[in-house]
Amino acid sequence: MTTFADVTAVSTMAPFAFTVDISPRWTIAGHPNGGYLLAMVGRAVAELSTQPHVLAASAHFLRSPEPGPAQIHVEPLRTGRTTSQLRGRLLVDDTPCVEALFTMGTIAPTPGPAWQDSLPDPAMTDPAVAIRLGPVTPAGQPAAIMAEAEVRLDPDCHRAFAGSPSGRGEIRGWLALPGGASFDPVSLLYAVDAFPAATFDIATTGWVPTLELTAYLRALPAPGPLRVVNKARLVDGPWVDQACHVWDSTGRLVAQATQLAGVRLP
Amino acid sequence: MTTFADVTAVSTMAPFAFTVDISPRWTIAGHPNGGYLLAMVGRAVAELSTQPHVLAASAHFLRSPEPGPAQIHVEPLRTGRTTSQLRGRLLVDDTPCVEALFTMGTIAPTPGPAWQDSLPDPAMTDPAVAIRLGPVTPAGQPAAIMAEAEVRLDPDCHRAFAGSPSGRGEIRGWLALPGGASFDPVSLLYAVDAFPAATFDIATTGWVPTLELTAYLRALPAPGPLRVVNKARLVDGPWVDQACHVWDSTGRLVAQATQLAGVRLP
Repeated sequence: MTTFADVTAVSTMAPFAFTVDISPRWTIAGHPNGGYLLAMVGRAVAELSTQPHVLAASAHFLRSPEPGPAQIHVEPLRTGRTTSQLRGRLLVDDTPCVEALFTMGTIAPTPGPAWQDSLPDPAMTDPAVAIRLGPVTPAGQPAAIMAEAEVRLDPDCHRAFAGSPSGRGEIRGWLALPGGASFDPVSLLYAVDAFPAATFDIATTGWVPTLELTAYLRALPAPGPLRVVNKARLVDGPWVDQACHVWDSTGRLVAQATQLAGVRLP
Repeated sequence: MTTFADVTAVSTMAPFAFTVDISPRWTIAGHPNGGYLLAMVGRAVAELSTQPHVLAASAHFLRSPEPGPAQIHVEPLRTGRTTSQLRGRLLVDDTPCVEALFTMGTIAPTPGPAWQDSLPDPAMTDPAVAIRLGPVTPAGQPAAIMAEAEVRLDPDCHRAFAGSPSGRGEIRGWLALPGGASFDPVSLLYAVDAFPAATFDIATTGWVPTLELTAYLRALPAPGPLRVVNKARLVDGPWVDQACHVWDSTGRLVAQATQLAGVRLP
């Protein structure tokens, strides 16, 4: 078994530069998953940060890199007492593919949220009856990543993958890493982009390429699978925004993200 | 009258560098508004972009600059046919204060959204009965910006400013630029951060400093005031996230934003 830690390993190459190896197995139709790439960059950034945890990460996706060797360059921007900011970029052969900004801090354990709004309901089918996605997309393209991460959809969301989208624009279910490894702030950066595009629950379309992804990490996740709700909000022109909420196995909201992506509804 | 275009004017200093003058009037308790700073950076970025409009902007706030002269440095990251990415940073005396990434494109007019989720209800009191915020905060600090931009709150949200927060964590109302100038994609970057922190509708606290702000611009705004709803979602530890939705005078959703900020609830 190849763990998530294995496929996001970073090796120091120079004081602010790392080499990484983008796995061909963490891809859909040959494209590395964006959250997987962001997690790699986040891991390199955490190596050079005086604070241990990502609080906020914002990534712009310039090009989809080929799997294989790549470099990550990190530039500290400001080092503070409670928060610090760093820039991370992933390059292949000196061509930038992912540009990201990070605010780092320390996520201390708290008994629970001090206040919360009504959030999307994380109540979901038991993971045992949720349906695991296989390594082929509804459009028949290879989704090698689905043989690595375990994405299990609520049965009524899974209908979107059998050609019957509900029109709600919502994909929800459970997520586990290879071997059931515990999530941490780095792998949460993958979690917020691990689910299929919520637009597949509106219409079957081609690739939905992410332009921008912003993640906020709100608590350290307890061991166990995550509950994920990915929701489309507005399709206007050729773009859609999606909001992703992630709860840990105790029901605590541990990450929130939004992304802007390209989409062509039929 | 000093217009928004005046206070965000950028002057070319070198091929990829601009000088700007941060207005002491667009401040709260002496701190320049974050959205105002981001709009300046966005304006400089648009000068060097082959595409005219900001689609997505992600800003990390490193330090609050003093009003006065500053520089903006722009670095094109990728130039594409339909989208391009650029980095913008605002510095005072070579010290970076705001770091931001932009994905640029062309927002073409469309008859309306192709699909939309249930979004926060923009139904609001008539602007004539909404209550304009004055140039003093509830805590008695100067809010010079409120004499420039026109922020009018729904009467029931305004109670938060008289020491009676509703507990909903929502501030909604109307926004107009000086002289009623029309909004454009640059000033929308200000609009998404123009309203008071939604946490003031939970409890009266001190300054709520923004760590990260991401804005998605979804349509070109029609002339007239904007409707703005700023909503807190989760306070956990010393951080809160807020979601801001902005509609134009025709009721069209033109911008969405999230921010992560520091807060200390009593």
